[in-house]
Amino acid sequence: MSTTQNETQPQATTASAQGRQMVGFSFYRLDPAWRRLPDDAKRKQAEELCGVVNAYAKRLMVLTYSLVGLKPDVDFLIWCVGKSMDELQEMSAAVRQTQMAGYLSMPYAYLSMTKRSTYVDKLDPEHQDQRRFIRPAHSKYLFVYPFVKTRDWYLLPMEQRQGMMDEHIRIGSKYPSVRLHTTYSFGLDDQEFVVAFETDKAEDFLDLVMELRESKGSKYTLRDTPIFTCVAKPMPEIVREFGTPA
Amino acid sequence: MSTTQNETQPQATTASAQGRQMVGFSFYRLDPAWRRLPDDAKRKQAEELCGVVNAYAKRLMVLTYSLVGLKPDVDFLIWCVGKSMDELQEMSAAVRQTQMAGYLSMPYAYLSMTKRSTYVDKLDPEHQDQRRFIRPAHSKYLFVYPFVKTRDWYLLPMEQRQGMMDEHIRIGSKYPSVRLHTTYSFGLDDQEFVVAFETDKAEDFLDLVMELRESKGSKYTLRDTPIFTCVAKPMPEIVREFGTPA
Amino acid sequence: MSTTQNETQPQATTASAQGRQMVGFSFYRLDPAWRRLPDDAKRKQAEELCGVVNAYAKRLMVLTYSLVGLKPDVDFLIWCVGKSMDELQEMSAAVRQTQMAGYLSMPYAYLSMTKRSTYVDKLDPEHQDQRRFIRPAHSKYLFVYPFVKTRDWYLLPMEQRQGMMDEHIRIGSKYPSVRLHTTYSFGLDDQEFVVAFETDKAEDFLDLVMELRESKGSKYTLRDTPIFTCVAKPMPEIVREFGTPA
Amino acid sequence: MSTTQNETQPQATTASAQGRQMVGFSFYRLDPAWRRLPDDAKRKQAEELCGVVNAYAKRLMVLTYSLVGLKPDVDFLIWCVGKSMDELQEMSAAVRQTQMAGYLSMPYAYLSMTKRSTYVDKLDPEHQDQRRFIRPAHSKYLFVYPFVKTRDWYLLPMEQRQGMMDEHIRIGSKYPSVRLHTTYSFGLDDQEFVVAFETDKAEDFLDLVMELRESKGSKYTLRDTPIFTCVAKPMPEIVREFGTPA
Amino acid sequence: MSTTQNETQPQATTASAQGRQMVGFSFYRLDPAWRRLPDDAKRKQAEELCGVVNAYAKRLMVLTYSLVGLKPDVDFLIWCVGKSMDELQEMSAAVRQTQMAGYLSMPYAYLSMTKRSTYVDKLDPEHQDQRRFIRPAHSKYLFVYPFVKTRDWYLLPMEQRQGMMDEHIRIGSKYPSVRLHTTYSFGLDDQEFVVAFETDKAEDFLDLVMELRESKGSKYTLRDTPIFTCVAKPMPEIVREFGTPA
Repeated sequence: MSTTQNETQPQATTASAQGRQMVGFSFYRLDPAWRRLPDDAKRKQAEELCGVVNAYAKRLMVLTYSLVGLKPDVDFLIWCVGKSMDELQEMSAAVRQTQMAGYLSMPYAYLSMTKRSTYVDKLDPEHQDQRRFIRPAHSKYLFVYPFVKTRDWYLLPMEQRQGMMDEHIRIGSKYPSVRLHTTYSFGLDDQEFVVAFETDKAEDFLDLVMELRESKGSKYTLRDTPIFTCVAKPMPEIVREFGTPA
Repeated sequence: MSTTQNETQPQATTASAQGRQMVGFSFYRLDPAWRRLPDDAKRKQAEELCGVVNAYAKRLMVLTYSLVGLKPDVDFLIWCVGKSMDELQEMSAAVRQTQMAGYLSMPYAYLSMTKRSTYVDKLDPEHQDQRRFIRPAHSKYLFVYPFVKTRDWYLLPMEQRQGMMDEHIRIGSKYPSVRLHTTYSFGLDDQEFVVAFETDKAEDFLDLVMELRESKGSKYTLRDTPIFTCVAKPMPEIVREFGTPA
Repeated sequence: MSTTQNETQPQATTASAQGRQMVGFSFYRLDPAWRRLPDDAKRKQAEELCGVVNAYAKRLMVLTYSLVGLKPDVDFLIWCVGKSMDELQEMSAAVRQTQMAGYLSMPYAYLSMTKRSTYVDKLDPEHQDQRRFIRPAHSKYLFVYPFVKTRDWYLLPMEQRQGMMDEHIRIGSKYPSVRLHTTYSFGLDDQEFVVAFETDKAEDFLDLVMELRESKGSKYTLRDTPIFTCVAKPMPEIVREFGTPA
Repeated sequence: MSTTQNETQPQATTASAQGRQMVGFSFYRLDPAWRRLPDDAKRKQAEELCGVVNAYAKRLMVLTYSLVGLKPDVDFLIWCVGKSMDELQEMSAAVRQTQMAGYLSMPYAYLSMTKRSTYVDKLDPEHQDQRRFIRPAHSKYLFVYPFVKTRDWYLLPMEQRQGMMDEHIRIGSKYPSVRLHTTYSFGLDDQEFVVAFETDKAEDFLDLVMELRESKGSKYTLRDTPIFTCVAKPMPEIVREFGTPA
Repeated sequence: MSTTQNETQPQATTASAQGRQMVGFSFYRLDPAWRRLPDDAKRKQAEELCGVVNAYAKRLMVLTYSLVGLKPDVDFLIWCVGKSMDELQEMSAAVRQTQMAGYLSMPYAYLSMTKRSTYVDKLDPEHQDQRRFIRPAHSKYLFVYPFVKTRDWYLLPMEQRQGMMDEHIRIGSKYPSVRLHTTYSFGLDDQEFVVAFETDKAEDFLDLVMELRESKGSKYTLRDTPIFTCVAKPMPEIVREFGTPA
């Protein structure tokens, strides 16, 4: 943030510059007008989109989810993890080159990066290091939301914050079906974190979130919406759900 | 919320995973441009939509309501209760396969799950268990809103919260024409609860809500809007109201 | 709000269920694209809309107002008072059956009910009872806004609230050109009240609102926007203002 | 605000009812689709719009400003001052009768009235009376924003408020290139005031606003956005800027 | 802010009126419908847009960035710095004269001015003066957001504010890859500042923002969103990313 690149000033640890992943959550909406196209055109466009997603899934981590009927104005999510911003943009550009892109908008998108955690996970000390790499569980459900803590949180002594994180982790450990992916958005996007939970049991996640409401850390949440319930499905199934004829 | 599915950690009660229902409130809006179509096309498309809703009403709990003239940018509600998220998405996908879907958007949608209540209903001790299954009264009016409590509520001692719930239930019992359906959205959607009230007497519900304003629990409400007034009607009547010619 | 219609529990006063009126404020917007139609089509469609409004004005209380140039994205208001929700929806459905409805949306709408006031009007003791029936003054201007009080208001002792209402009424009485219609929306819509002021002197209303800012009750206002300035005009004049050629 | 026009109650000063002006700030947006029209059509429509504005500029105070490139979704402002609401609506209706109106929307509009100030301007005692009549300086820049004070402000003793206004006026007097027009919107529109500043030196206005941040009255501001930077230009220049070919 | 241009009153320093630059951040969105045009039309329109941007880049400071896939509803940013508002508007008008402008909207735009800093940068005392002129580093990434401080900040004693700025600057100096451009919007736009950070290492900026959360000044931030991650690219590359065929 200085205006000169002063070589003699203390450098931020360069370790932080390496081994991180870029993460993009792109929520797409199909213009209802697309459904007025002839059936043949719809089938052809849907096939082209599936092909593009498939091609990128061979090079990047690309997971697809249906939100049809679950969230206003959103039809599907492409969750994409790459080594660089360039890789994410390359895939987004490829989607925009398809015919269906004439009817696609992206009402929500969240950008984040992996990073070692600031807090210690006493139940699973390897956890922090794992945070630098997204390893999806390929569960049926993904719950995603942007997350912002109050400024008061950051002014608490580290010990007090660690204590609240301990309670948080302890409650989480009661729900082993739920896997958490925390990624960081400070300065990159409106939120501080994007959190994504995978599970095969939606009711477990509901119970976990409800139980966490009574934890001490809960009152330091400034914003944790919108919350997206996403159902893992291959693209050919998703395009049928949003209106491609059989 | 741990990153590993540790089999030896204490499991969340699996009872919670069973016997719950998935609940979807899908508020649809018809693009005004649809009304410019030829009368024949409008009639045919309306009939197709009615047929799809009717088919699913045989498999799931499907209730339909008109909001024509009552709420900006909303024409009708499909209230759908099923055993799984898949069932809800299947019906949503079927709606999107109709011709009219080229003109339908879904400006509001709320997703929730049934669950035993945390509080005791001293006037009706069976009530909590009943909460796991939606049993509609098929009343004329349905009032729906997403509901979020303040974080302070969740940090109060359970005894104090139960006391305020007792007062709440006692006031509610003065309006026997009103039946409440509470469903849970923690982690699934932006709100904590979706509450839906059925009654044949809209004025009773208005008086009840006004009386509750003076109860102690009232100040722990963070958000209880938007509020939707919905009038139960069969689909063929609804499509006439939003513009299908006779 | 109980789940059973317990006949032996104390009933809410059934008096409240009678003699109330349903009130709808429907703010319509014309899509600018309508103005690109041929002059003949515009004239014909405008005439049809005027006819529908006119027909309902014989059965219900229907008052029309122009907002052309006064409020973003709103062209006109239909203020409708009937005996039931059905009557309001019937008229809304009739508007949606017109040709112009292909270009009409309803960006704002407020739903409310009449009800006896909770407070005593010492200057005009008959006032409360009159509240159950809307009697318009047919003034030139109508000022409408949704109104929500803070939750703190409802937790004040009744005596203290009545004191602040007394001051409010006393200030109001200094502006006899202004007639107030208070209607109730608790549970029916996002606001608690819809207030509508009629006057022939817009400057009187401005001065009244400004004077009320210094009253004690003023700080218990949570929300009193959007505020709509509406000018009473017959439909044929309104359609000319929003773009029908002479 | 009484329900009866009681002739014997004390009348509000009728002086206030006279000599006031109605003020409208209408911010127009051109649909980008307009730019796809043939060049001839664009030229013809632009000419028609200029003619209408020009005709009304002979009868009312009509000033035009370009916001092209300066504010999202706004292309130009028509600042109009008349003797009555009717005059404002008449001009708005005339704009809506043009061909270009098929592509014009009005995403922002502010309605207000002139009125004598409640506070004394010790540096310029004539100022309050001048407030009843808008006398534009015809400067190059106009800065407009809606303004709402906190309710706490209105509950302060008048003496304390006057003290803060004195400081405000004293700071303002250091920037003689800036002329302020304060108009009143209480009850007419969402804001309490619309403030409009004219100057030929945009940097003076920036410095003034920045200096005022440190004044005591500053913390009683509830809302002072959106802020519009407007550049005075004749309509023929404005239509070229938003896309009419030469 | 006086209503008369009193020549004898103390003048604001005229130094401030000179040597400042006008700064515009224009975020453009392409209507998805553009992508439905024939390939030839898309190529021709893209070329025309590139030509216009290129022509202005010879006269003004014009930097272009892609946001494809990174932010909802935004495709690219034109960051433009000129001597006057006229220069910014001239370029905006030229963009609006292109064929592609029929499909371009500008959902976000921020207007600001350069100005000497009020605070002393002890690590780099020349910094303040440099603030009057934007000197881009031409880094790969640009992070932009509008910034508003709480009113409480401005009522703190200058010494206390300088102390917090010292800490801020000291933390910033640990990240020499990041260059900050602070510009001023008081009175010109909704925010107080527009801040733009250039760096080749996105992770450094993330770490810097995260570290600043724990600084004392952090709690005086009222708003620092939306945050835009922008990737520096020449226009011909940007148009390919948002959908121009090769």
